[in-house]
Amino acid sequence: MKALVLEEKGKLSLRDFNLPRDIGPHDVRIKIHTVGICGSDVHYYTHGKIGPFVVTEPMVLGHEASGDVLEVGAEVAHLKPGDRVCMEPGIPDANSRASKLGIYNVDPAVRFWATPPVHGCLTPEVVHPAAYTFKLPDNVSFAEGAMVEPFAIGMQAAVRARIVPGDVAVVTGAGPIGMMVALAALAGGCARVIISDFSQPKLDIIGNYPGIQTVNLGQTDLPSFVASVTGDWGADVVFECSGAAPAILGLPGLARPGGTIVLVGMPVDPVPVDIVGLQAREVRIETVFRYANVYDRAIELIASGKVDLKPLISDTLSFENAIVAFDRAVAQRPEDVKIQIRVNS
Amino acid sequence: MKALVLEEKGKLSLRDFNLPRDIGPHDVRIKIHTVGICGSDVHYYTHGKIGPFVVTEPMVLGHEASGDVLEVGAEVAHLKPGDRVCMEPGIPDANSRASKLGIYNVDPAVRFWATPPVHGCLTPEVVHPAAYTFKLPDNVSFAEGAMVEPFAIGMQAAVRARIVPGDVAVVTGAGPIGMMVALAALAGGCARVIISDFSQPKLDIIGNYPGIQTVNLGQTDLPSFVASVTGDWGADVVFECSGAAPAILGLPGLARPGGTIVLVGMPVDPVPVDIVGLQAREVRIETVFRYANVYDRAIELIASGKVDLKPLISDTLSFENAIVAFDRAVAQRPEDVKIQIRVNS
Amino acid sequence: MKALVLEEKGKLSLRDFNLPRDIGPHDVRIKIHTVGICGSDVHYYTHGKIGPFVVTEPMVLGHEASGDVLEVGAEVAHLKPGDRVCMEPGIPDANSRASKLGIYNVDPAVRFWATPPVHGCLTPEVVHPAAYTFKLPDNVSFAEGAMVEPFAIGMQAAVRARIVPGDVAVVTGAGPIGMMVALAALAGGCARVIISDFSQPKLDIIGNYPGIQTVNLGQTDLPSFVASVTGDWGADVVFECSGAAPAILGLPGLARPGGTIVLVGMPVDPVPVDIVGLQAREVRIETVFRYANVYDRAIELIASGKVDLKPLISDTLSFENAIVAFDRAVAQRPEDVKIQIRVNS
Amino acid sequence: MKALVLEEKGKLSLRDFNLPRDIGPHDVRIKIHTVGICGSDVHYYTHGKIGPFVVTEPMVLGHEASGDVLEVGAEVAHLKPGDRVCMEPGIPDANSRASKLGIYNVDPAVRFWATPPVHGCLTPEVVHPAAYTFKLPDNVSFAEGAMVEPFAIGMQAAVRARIVPGDVAVVTGAGPIGMMVALAALAGGCARVIISDFSQPKLDIIGNYPGIQTVNLGQTDLPSFVASVTGDWGADVVFECSGAAPAILGLPGLARPGGTIVLVGMPVDPVPVDIVGLQAREVRIETVFRYANVYDRAIELIASGKVDLKPLISDTLSFENAIVAFDRAVAQRPEDVKIQIRVNS
Repeated sequence: MKALVLEEKGKLSLRDFNLPRDIGPHDVRIKIHTVGICGSDVHYYTHGKIGPFVVTEPMVLGHEASGDVLEVGAEVAHLKPGDRVCMEPGIPDANSRASKLGIYNVDPAVRFWATPPVHGCLTPEVVHPAAYTFKLPDNVSFAEGAMVEPFAIGMQAAVRARIVPGDVAVVTGAGPIGMMVALAALAGGCARVIISDFSQPKLDIIGNYPGIQTVNLGQTDLPSFVASVTGDWGADVVFECSGAAPAILGLPGLARPGGTIVLVGMPVDPVPVDIVGLQAREVRIETVFRYANVYDRAIELIASGKVDLKPLISDTLSFENAIVAFDRAVAQRPEDVKIQIRVNS
Repeated sequence: MKALVLEEKGKLSLRDFNLPRDIGPHDVRIKIHTVGICGSDVHYYTHGKIGPFVVTEPMVLGHEASGDVLEVGAEVAHLKPGDRVCMEPGIPDANSRASKLGIYNVDPAVRFWATPPVHGCLTPEVVHPAAYTFKLPDNVSFAEGAMVEPFAIGMQAAVRARIVPGDVAVVTGAGPIGMMVALAALAGGCARVIISDFSQPKLDIIGNYPGIQTVNLGQTDLPSFVASVTGDWGADVVFECSGAAPAILGLPGLARPGGTIVLVGMPVDPVPVDIVGLQAREVRIETVFRYANVYDRAIELIASGKVDLKPLISDTLSFENAIVAFDRAVAQRPEDVKIQIRVNS
Repeated sequence: MKALVLEEKGKLSLRDFNLPRDIGPHDVRIKIHTVGICGSDVHYYTHGKIGPFVVTEPMVLGHEASGDVLEVGAEVAHLKPGDRVCMEPGIPDANSRASKLGIYNVDPAVRFWATPPVHGCLTPEVVHPAAYTFKLPDNVSFAEGAMVEPFAIGMQAAVRARIVPGDVAVVTGAGPIGMMVALAALAGGCARVIISDFSQPKLDIIGNYPGIQTVNLGQTDLPSFVASVTGDWGADVVFECSGAAPAILGLPGLARPGGTIVLVGMPVDPVPVDIVGLQAREVRIETVFRYANVYDRAIELIASGKVDLKPLISDTLSFENAIVAFDRAVAQRPEDVKIQIRVNS
Repeated sequence: MKALVLEEKGKLSLRDFNLPRDIGPHDVRIKIHTVGICGSDVHYYTHGKIGPFVVTEPMVLGHEASGDVLEVGAEVAHLKPGDRVCMEPGIPDANSRASKLGIYNVDPAVRFWATPPVHGCLTPEVVHPAAYTFKLPDNVSFAEGAMVEPFAIGMQAAVRARIVPGDVAVVTGAGPIGMMVALAALAGGCARVIISDFSQPKLDIIGNYPGIQTVNLGQTDLPSFVASVTGDWGADVVFECSGAAPAILGLPGLARPGGTIVLVGMPVDPVPVDIVGLQAREVRIETVFRYANVYDRAIELIASGKVDLKPLISDTLSFENAIVAFDRAVAQRPEDVKIQIRVNS
């Protein structure tokens, strides 16, 4: 079966690749429809590794996927052939200490699509555990289904923030993840979201959503802006999505006394934090790692119309053009939020 | 100064009434613009009492109010004459044990407008503590400002529910409070809200809001409906807003394992509860009493456009017609959600 | 292999019984050492059923067990033959919706020892999933190991209460579960626990623990007592462990404003609840169902010496005397908290 | 009236000093009995400032105090002359936004004893708001009463940690605050506490308490130790009490997946934090600033015998020897945890 294979750093092939096809009693076989390209896919392509995860063998890329169920295992009850679905790409050991606590995302044994040595889903057919496969409602398209994965990161941030209805939130960084976080925070109970970046094209895209205000950091001082719109009180929740050292150092100046900061952006190296500044406002800080138990919630919000991800799908290419799609993603044009690949249609 | 006075059970007068006019250093003097009629105002009118609170002396009614600041006390910093405001009607002892904990609504010393022996605000001018007076943004009308009080009850329920983004909620009872709860839950992070009642006109009003599904209890079995739309799982949050014994007995059949029930409706007498049924799903139950720390959040949600309360204002009468307005409210037509009185304009 | 078999309501046999002996890759085979008799074992014996669970076939009793590991499955890493262990008796579907959320106790698919149609552990050898088998530290005896199960119920109540350090707690009902709850609450952060019952012998047993005050309901009015020792404020947490209707109706009079009530006792039928009384103090109510993720915590507290369960082991009988032990348990002498059976030694 | 006055950096006088003596309706007048010397008192003495708080005028020191009520204001109900009391030294604006939320400790308007320009309590008589004055039970001595203030910092850390019963905690840093945190965590529900420092004398003092294990950082690798005693899982809660950069950088290696870190120590400047390391375990981080709503809880724990602070009172000097006492505190002998001054007796 064809697959998009990262042969080594910098080298992609669309070629036949042998992937396990056995379907266990709790699995489903899925015909892949759409796969989005994630920054991590691009990073493996351009760098050959992410932190401790190094590509040493050819690896199939892709983990943001939707498709149709072709076959279900003997014990699968909630899915049937023909169901339109999307898939959660990380599979934990269900009996691990973390999984039993409900935080399976931090189970060290998680196997995650397109993370060495686990292959991804940029191929016409995959086998996946039914427990991590979610039926799409009729009014959610395959394209939206493939957006559930990146949106789930925003959802995880919104869940961990423990938003109180009517909160005012700040999101620092308007990259794809910052945008997902902003939309999840708004749908998740915030009255409004202020999002900041240096890139005006990015701000223009996300600023089109009602309830989201944009701050161009090249023109406006963010702490002053937040103070002015909150009566010198500060934001209830600050989502740090830039991973940039100056943004992290400036966090105490954005949050209200007793407020919350959610660290979403991932600075490669340790960065200076103003601990006394955080203490003076007795801020709570949450960190996020992927997601757990949010796929159903994400799908509900998309299906109910509270979250519209379609404007963030910048382009869709065919499977034959998968390498072109990756090179387009590598270019990181500010107007491109999400590039998707149509594998089957 | 004129005031709408409940002389005794069943007897209202619009007449001159002497109210304290002294303004302390932390107070503001407010020209009242609009006052909504609450079910409790009506209940004092028709029954002369609510539980232990008995009207033994003539009492000014009204506690859902907006207006303009006329004068501010010497130490008031956040308000100035001319500000458009709405007022939180319950004033606690700020140094009580409950207030220090941030739960000033349950301070036994609270003095609440139009709750014997405290007079209400259906009069052209009141003096109120600045700390419980909130500036209205330019895009929030006086009519909406007077809706903040009833909406605050919905907000309190939504806050106590600790909604997780994407929750599915059920609201049992589509009276004015049930409607407020539904809107607060939806804006506060729920993906969608199912609301039930026997009255189709009430369901038609609230069912007009996107994201709110209605269930007519005369036609549809609510537990079956909830099971069908949640994959036999149950609702994440159930807001009991009817106060009706059958609804309360049936609560375990609506909530998912590990779900939440918020008791908003107030049954006069003890009612049977299926405790083992609740335990089998390990449900958490929250109760609410008025509200605390939600006025600013409520105003944010109205100002941001996430909550539109205007369709719930059924009619507005002049101060001269205040008694007519009350008799209209007594009639409890299902089409009437909120009747307001324009005191000054 | 011999087992204590409930043949039908009222009839026990100690006889050979065929139980599955296959050990899967994630299982362990355990030589049972000690098994405690639970009220539910006794209830199946005397009534033949508990709620919807009816004994229709001969069933092995017992679910409070400790023992030695005899053999481990191929993929078991954290246990080895010779380890002294205790076992969590309820096994969920690890991939269910509830289990993924970390609330596997409310997974409808749970299979629980000695709950029809699942056999218990009153037999010399059992096979059990390793993930639900816990190593006992050297300083925790087998007898204490078999107490972990009933103590886990107390732990679940203490966890769900979200005790704040220094809380004052009330426990209504000094049966075995009430005692477990009192000890878990005290070790779990309460400054002190007030426990009430009509039985002085029970109160004498639990009142021996420092930090636990007893109230004999035949002599002292509990609400007045609680008011007097809390400055007319009320208890931070009330654990209802009697299941008695008058206790449940009286709950609002025990909790402080903003306090917590945990419903542990299980009244067979719906009972009247004073909802308005609970709302007036804006009380939160938690319910509990068995336990999840507390075995390791329970063992830590026993091993560290913060909880001493040994005084609650009233007597230990040999396996040959298992039926005598059950008849002793049926008698429910107030001095008997826990009767244990030594299966192997 | 005599007072211990910090005239300027490095210069103390015990001399007559004019302090306000008016007692308002909500105040009490207190005869001071015992005052403990805090690190902040010493820091003002040796450095003349702490962060932005600079001593520019002579200032009375001291904020850890107990005493007897001499007189109560007209509206004080819960105290009377002769009551033995301790006092919370920070007084907020009760109507501020933070105070209304119950987090009065982060109200920017807080006036705190012995923090410029507010005078402290090292003087025979003070006037204090009754709402921040707490009656001592008969079995709590004045010396213990003056320990409530430093213990309250430990309590705040324990409260914010949201300890789950049976948690394993690590405390990094065995200074006076680290010790208080360890004791509060243990009483507050932890099964056991591991505390680390380079100073063996400090470890010997706190290691005397049952349930507290010590790790000398000069001899033992803390992450390895924590891994070994938690089955390679990590601590549930880590209280960072050293303020030392290496300790802060190493925090991700101590906490379990989904664990909690509480930042108590205050590094003067921003320090590097391993954010990705924290994210990989999805750790929650709490910060603390002084305390709110814990005095009553602290007193309960001392009175119930769950916390014994007496071993931490290293010496007590007379008021006449107050300057000697301060010079002793400046020396920071590792054996000295708390030096107290007996003002009246």
